[in-house]
Amino acid sequence: MTVQERITALRGRMAEEKVDAYLVPTDDFHASEYVGDYFKCRKYITGFTGSAGTAVIMQDMAGLWTDGRYFIQAAAQLEGSGVTLFKIGEPQVPTIHEFLEQKLGEGMCLGCDGRTVSSQEAAQLSSLLDKKGVSIRYDLDLVGDIWDDRPELSCEPVMELEEKWTGESRASRIARIRASIQKQGADLFVLTSLDDIAWLLNIRGGDIHCCPVVLSYLVMTADEILLFANEKAFPDGVMRALNEDGVQIRPYNDVYGYAAKIPAGKKVLLCREKVNSRLTASIPEGVTVLDQKNPTLLPKSVKNPTEVENERIAHIKDGVALTKFIYWLKTNVGKIPMTELSVEEKLFSLRSEQEHFMGNSFDPIISYGAHAAMNHYSATPETDIPIEAKGLLLADTGGHYLEGTTDTTRTIAMGPVTDEQKLYFTAVLRGTLSLADAKFRYGTTGLNLDYLARKPLWELGKDFNHGTGHGVGYFLNVHEEPNSFHWKATSARKADTVFEEGMITSDEPGYYVEGGYGIRHENMIVCVKDKKTEFGQFMRFEHLTMVPFDLDAIVPEQMSEHERALLNSYHAQIYAKIAPHLTDEEAAWLKNATREI
Amino acid sequence: MTVQERITALRGRMAEEKVDAYLVPTDDFHASEYVGDYFKCRKYITGFTGSAGTAVIMQDMAGLWTDGRYFIQAAAQLEGSGVTLFKIGEPQVPTIHEFLEQKLGEGMCLGCDGRTVSSQEAAQLSSLLDKKGVSIRYDLDLVGDIWDDRPELSCEPVMELEEKWTGESRASRIARIRASIQKQGADLFVLTSLDDIAWLLNIRGGDIHCCPVVLSYLVMTADEILLFANEKAFPDGVMRALNEDGVQIRPYNDVYGYAAKIPAGKKVLLCREKVNSRLTASIPEGVTVLDQKNPTLLPKSVKNPTEVENERIAHIKDGVALTKFIYWLKTNVGKIPMTELSVEEKLFSLRSEQEHFMGNSFDPIISYGAHAAMNHYSATPETDIPIEAKGLLLADTGGHYLEGTTDTTRTIAMGPVTDEQKLYFTAVLRGTLSLADAKFRYGTTGLNLDYLARKPLWELGKDFNHGTGHGVGYFLNVHEEPNSFHWKATSARKADTVFEEGMITSDEPGYYVEGGYGIRHENMIVCVKDKKTEFGQFMRFEHLTMVPFDLDAIVPEQMSEHERALLNSYHAQIYAKIAPHLTDEEAAWLKNATREI
Repeated sequence: MTVQERITALRGRMAEEKVDAYLVPTDDFHASEYVGDYFKCRKYITGFTGSAGTAVIMQDMAGLWTDGRYFIQAAAQLEGSGVTLFKIGEPQVPTIHEFLEQKLGEGMCLGCDGRTVSSQEAAQLSSLLDKKGVSIRYDLDLVGDIWDDRPELSCEPVMELEEKWTGESRASRIARIRASIQKQGADLFVLTSLDDIAWLLNIRGGDIHCCPVVLSYLVMTADEILLFANEKAFPDGVMRALNEDGVQIRPYNDVYGYAAKIPAGKKVLLCREKVNSRLTASIPEGVTVLDQKNPTLLPKSVKNPTEVENERIAHIKDGVALTKFIYWLKTNVGKIPMTELSVEEKLFSLRSEQEHFMGNSFDPIISYGAHAAMNHYSATPETDIPIEAKGLLLADTGGHYLEGTTDTTRTIAMGPVTDEQKLYFTAVLRGTLSLADAKFRYGTTGLNLDYLARKPLWELGKDFNHGTGHGVGYFLNVHEEPNSFHWKATSARKADTVFEEGMITSDEPGYYVEGGYGIRHENMIVCVKDKKTEFGQFMRFEHLTMVPFDLDAIVPEQMSEHERALLNSYHAQIYAKIAPHLTDEEAAWLKNATREI
Repeated sequence: MTVQERITALRGRMAEEKVDAYLVPTDDFHASEYVGDYFKCRKYITGFTGSAGTAVIMQDMAGLWTDGRYFIQAAAQLEGSGVTLFKIGEPQVPTIHEFLEQKLGEGMCLGCDGRTVSSQEAAQLSSLLDKKGVSIRYDLDLVGDIWDDRPELSCEPVMELEEKWTGESRASRIARIRASIQKQGADLFVLTSLDDIAWLLNIRGGDIHCCPVVLSYLVMTADEILLFANEKAFPDGVMRALNEDGVQIRPYNDVYGYAAKIPAGKKVLLCREKVNSRLTASIPEGVTVLDQKNPTLLPKSVKNPTEVENERIAHIKDGVALTKFIYWLKTNVGKIPMTELSVEEKLFSLRSEQEHFMGNSFDPIISYGAHAAMNHYSATPETDIPIEAKGLLLADTGGHYLEGTTDTTRTIAMGPVTDEQKLYFTAVLRGTLSLADAKFRYGTTGLNLDYLARKPLWELGKDFNHGTGHGVGYFLNVHEEPNSFHWKATSARKADTVFEEGMITSDEPGYYVEGGYGIRHENMIVCVKDKKTEFGQFMRFEHLTMVPFDLDAIVPEQMSEHERALLNSYHAQIYAKIAPHLTDEEAAWLKNATREI
């Protein structure tokens, strides 16, 4: 079916159900950042393949809302489909809420698959539309109804992650979280975010591209844990181990029926930002819902000593692969053909040589020249370009290892670069180094420290329009809440997150010139304890990432003595840790690439 | 009467009114930071003279709650009075709320003068005590009833502040605020904070020690402005000018009767944090109260170009007085007798020589040696000590001028100082200079920048337990909201304040060793526009304060090249601006005191 035919079919179902407008978000049933093929209803009904966007279908219109990253791509993909592009943030363009408020009136009905809308978003829709007399149905899956060749739900095999990797047994994690929910006075805890479930149960899977998670819902009570998932995904040994720790498997979709039977008077702890609206709507009236951050959120983000030590090992492995990659790029560019996609393959093969490599932690961003100015560029056969012996190549990539997850960006001079490029290359690097060098009193947040990364750019009247850093999971999602670096408190939920010992965060300022070039330097840094004095505990960061910054694009005179000392000591560390794993030629190259400046 | 006799008399009145507990805060009727003698009920009933504290009197107990600054003083002053000291923040010590919740029960009554309790605080008390069946009466003044020789309400003469000082006419300010309240959909605006009223009407008075304000309440409607104040304070010319701009004077206490007659259906804009509870309780049921920050708050804090230019002049005058003071100290110490109080007088006489000097902007903190470790120390005849030719003298002082208000701290080596003192003297100074050197994108808050001031201390495992900076009024209160520097977001109301062009803030890190010494370096800095680029408007600060930092206590080797350059360029500015107003001897001294390091 063409997109037009799909929309026509959907409108038929809408008419049957007396639905006036049908909402199709991008989300899966777990508010995941990326979604599996089964969940790509928005893509199916509009033809737009981007990672963010929401469709609204009515009898006389079909619209897609997406943000600035995707304006060009969406316009191209929607051409001829009859779907109107709504550019979020552009003047005169209504938001989805404004649009629905304007188009819908007394007696009309908005429909959606409530499993793809968070309880929080549903509450906002209700407060918007209730007063207009518009009803909302969350019990539909009209796109699913017409999608004949819909892919199956993913059912990749589940593995246990042994205690030597996680540093804590499943039983201990369960006991900690159970104590926490009891302390909050809850009888049940409903957990639907997949990385939290994987962390809690020490399991990993492969149900989402680049995210080693298991499609499932979890309910914890004082005496049982029900995991709603496809039991076929669980090998016998894993199943037995889960059972021994009191975890019972139930069919994936049974969670809604379970929720509907929670006895009145019970108190259920859940996070409305994460739990989908059909699930919360299934909970009977007499049950009290305690809307709280998931009690797994903070424990998951605070890596224990075993996890931190493993991450150091993962970063040496990843550092070896990336150092070999940079050496290979520098020595071969201009001599053998290279394109963005071909060097991406090369890097993957180098990572694959490392023991316990489990795959990419996200789709690699290998972007050459002007491509690097597009923050979310990923090369495709259509966009792929040759890499020449000049200019800057930006490589933002990461791997999963049993020892943890990496996320590193290096910007590499492939040959001559301009003075302007060197100026900003150096300014961005000064920011990366200064932030990692922070010494701070316990209680400090990302809001307090972000300035360190931006200062050298702000002094030049420049900036980068993205956050400075995000939390990173342990062999889990590469983007993990709640720790981050940012300068504006856009979400109260995260702005007050204090850096705890063991939190791992990326440190990634950048600078981008549209149509020109892009620079980003990204290290992962772990928060550790510094001295303790009469003023309390002081904290600092340590670099986990062990990959040299390209001295070919640095202007040492732009750096203060202290900044140069930071770079030199970091580079000395890299040589000591990485060189033993290299060939003689590579080690000799690294010696020079990490020389004192 | 002794304190005990006063409490006995109060208990008599409490019995007559059937009040079980009587609350006596420190506040006046306007939530002022300092209060006039008429308002000192808490001091009258307990004998405690500190600037912060709350008394609770019951038939079988009398208690005073105060904070760590005053534990020693309060213990001494309460001795023998029968008043129990409750040390706020100490373990096992209940808060006032906890105490009242515990002591009061069904059918009992808490009383207070509602004019001394903000509407916000009253709401908290109600939510606490309502559920216990405790009633609260806000219509009492039982301490006033027994206070025979109570001072009169202050009635100092009111002056107009001409447009050449304020840069904006009264009519223009009124028009701006009227537009703002109409935009918010309000029919009336009730303004009771005295500095806001003085700013709005371009008037100054002398009703609060060190604060040039006029005791009054103001009500603005679409077509009138009523100023509830003592008309005797207004000279004919001022009265006429006010009338011409539509301002009518009404008796001070009539505001409560006026509020009681606001017609139902009207919308009243007021700030519950500032307006007292008796006033809001006077407003009839059918009136809608819009609880918002005062619309005067932001315009008052953003100084216009005339105010900023005047402030620069005020700071040169103040810089001349302070430079002469430091010269006098350095050349005379050890030769003539000096004490904290005597040099305080010397400084006052030097400031008094400056044209348009209008008095101290706060009680001077001249603290020598270990006294300087006490943040709120002010010398009294009992505590006064001689100043010798060694160690550090901390002088935190400020003046009011028609051209604006100053607030400066310098720490001065009176002779030999230890290496430790030099280490921290230099570290604190590096913080002061780094914060003032910030270049930042519009939208930045104090939370983002505070780290700059603390970094050198935090790197040493040290800190100071006070905010880094506060807003300063224009010939008005030396502490002015909403701009500030701090690292913890304790008040959501202030944490999100963005630095605007024209905001004036203090920059005052410090370091204190109990029983040893204290260091603080404080400059006032004004926010100005820096470059504008494709990323928007960038901002920076300029020093207003023009007083040298004592090179005798600085270790240049501890400072980076950039930090030394910042100090040298600041010192060069000072010499250029201050030297022309000095004697030859003083100028020669200043030349050396501002030499390049």
